[in-house]
Amino acid sequence: MTHDEIEAAHARIAPHVRRTPLLEAAGVSLKLEFLQHTGSFKPRGAFNNLLTRSAPAAGVATASGGNHGAAVAYAAARLGVKAKVFVPRIAAPVKIEKIRAYGADVHVEGDTYNEALALCEAHIVATGALGVHAYDARETIAGQGTVGLEWERDLERLGLPKLDTVLVAVGGGGLISGIAAWFAGRTRVVGVEPEGSRALHAALAAGTPTDVTVQSVAADSLGARRVGALNFEICAGAVERVALVPDAAIVAAQRALWRDFDIVAEPGGAAAFAALMCGAYAPAAAERVGVLLCGGNADLAALVR
Amino acid sequence: MTHDEIEAAHARIAPHVRRTPLLEAAGVSLKLEFLQHTGSFKPRGAFNNLLTRSAPAAGVATASGGNHGAAVAYAAARLGVKAKVFVPRIAAPVKIEKIRAYGADVHVEGDTYNEALALCEAHIVATGALGVHAYDARETIAGQGTVGLEWERDLERLGLPKLDTVLVAVGGGGLISGIAAWFAGRTRVVGVEPEGSRALHAALAAGTPTDVTVQSVAADSLGARRVGALNFEICAGAVERVALVPDAAIVAAQRALWRDFDIVAEPGGAAAFAALMCGAYAPAAAERVGVLLCGGNADLAALVR
Repeated sequence: MTHDEIEAAHARIAPHVRRTPLLEAAGVSLKLEFLQHTGSFKPRGAFNNLLTRSAPAAGVATASGGNHGAAVAYAAARLGVKAKVFVPRIAAPVKIEKIRAYGADVHVEGDTYNEALALCEAHIVATGALGVHAYDARETIAGQGTVGLEWERDLERLGLPKLDTVLVAVGGGGLISGIAAWFAGRTRVVGVEPEGSRALHAALAAGTPTDVTVQSVAADSLGARRVGALNFEICAGAVERVALVPDAAIVAAQRALWRDFDIVAEPGGAAAFAALMCGAYAPAAAERVGVLLCGGNADLAALVR
Repeated sequence: MTHDEIEAAHARIAPHVRRTPLLEAAGVSLKLEFLQHTGSFKPRGAFNNLLTRSAPAAGVATASGGNHGAAVAYAAARLGVKAKVFVPRIAAPVKIEKIRAYGADVHVEGDTYNEALALCEAHIVATGALGVHAYDARETIAGQGTVGLEWERDLERLGLPKLDTVLVAVGGGGLISGIAAWFAGRTRVVGVEPEGSRALHAALAAGTPTDVTVQSVAADSLGARRVGALNFEICAGAVERVALVPDAAIVAAQRALWRDFDIVAEPGGAAAFAALMCGAYAPAAAERVGVLLCGGNADLAALVR
């Protein structure tokens, strides 16, 4: 994954996605990617797929814990393409509602992302629909990498110092592999996974993608059983390490973001901030850290409780 | 109110407040001031007061619908000063909780901001505490004006076009008078008030501050019965006009901000966006509009309903 591919993706998707802002606070640079269309970074990869690969009459199909499905539904609607989205029963209702509101056909079945993925693959075989993988696809990765490009360039435009380290939440590895491909050699990229959903941590330890069990409050966004092959290939050389956070730290980070920033983050979107708060990632003195807030589709009722 | 006063305020408060980011979306420039400490713009004026006027042993005292009280409590705690905050019973519980959490002594009494103000003034006479007015004070206005300074400079730093018009919600007039003093002669400043709480609209019509009745979903942030004398003096020459929005448009704007941006805005914080959505302010073709999202301290439970 080269800089040129990410640059090209950025030029392609720029008319369709928001250039999300940066906030200097709590001693770090926060990238407010939850302000993206659909409430997560996922439209970047979705648009990069749909603008480079043409969909047949059967339209596009995808499997998702929810956010990627909402992004594909949104991008498909904007580009006039039919979309079918497979989500597991654990997908947050707010995400399923968004997918429907964008006009996609939603199929809710299975207990995990991987079960939804198997159903989606069968649908693709049966209908010839264009599959848009949530993470293990070059177009997806290049799209998500544009988060890194914007972050670096906007710091420069604002006259702010470069980052030593960025903290990025990991599910199947689409976001972190794109960001690591962008920052490789200049800024340390550290993954953050729930203790109960550590696909990249396990893959880096084993030297190859490995199945893990998934049990976490962030399962509907970070709940992949195994990182993608292409994602692993990039991360193995470019991700410094993975910090693991307990679910309690994720929930505490959600509460702190609401209390101190009036920001609503979903569990997966708060995980990187949690790593800093709970000490799972402890920066050195004077280390300049970036924290990516990557998703906001939280259950407000749960946040009230 | 000169540019120099606002520049001086900015230099003074910069170490204590967040430089809140801008987002280009929905065809406008959004200034995300709800990301400020305490969840509203109010710490700008609060710090500018406390950094220029010294508090006696009795500390500082203020009256507030909630947000200004939280800001004074926050600033006082940061600067090691004792604070007493008078709020009416309509103040949102989330704001009262914040005031307490920052360590201030909260006094909840009266039905309106103006009743809380009378109690606060009696307290100041009795104790000699330093009063920090929520809007009708030079230090407060200069502090709030720094929102305009940042907005204009950050657009330039980001290489984005200047604004033709900014939409700013109005309560007692502190925020809009500071912003109008900054932008006067370069960018049109349009106020936004609830139909049921239109103190500036009435004052501009009458040519002098006038009492109005207050009945609005945004009363706890925009519910002043009368604009300040100093605020009126500035606004009379520098505010183009006031757009009035019904409560239903404010609630619809809150829902749209959550649905399309994952942003939680309180009613007063959504009012300027509501003016654009409901057509109370209709920009000309190619008019470049800025919308200030000035407060996020919403009742999440109400947003769920």
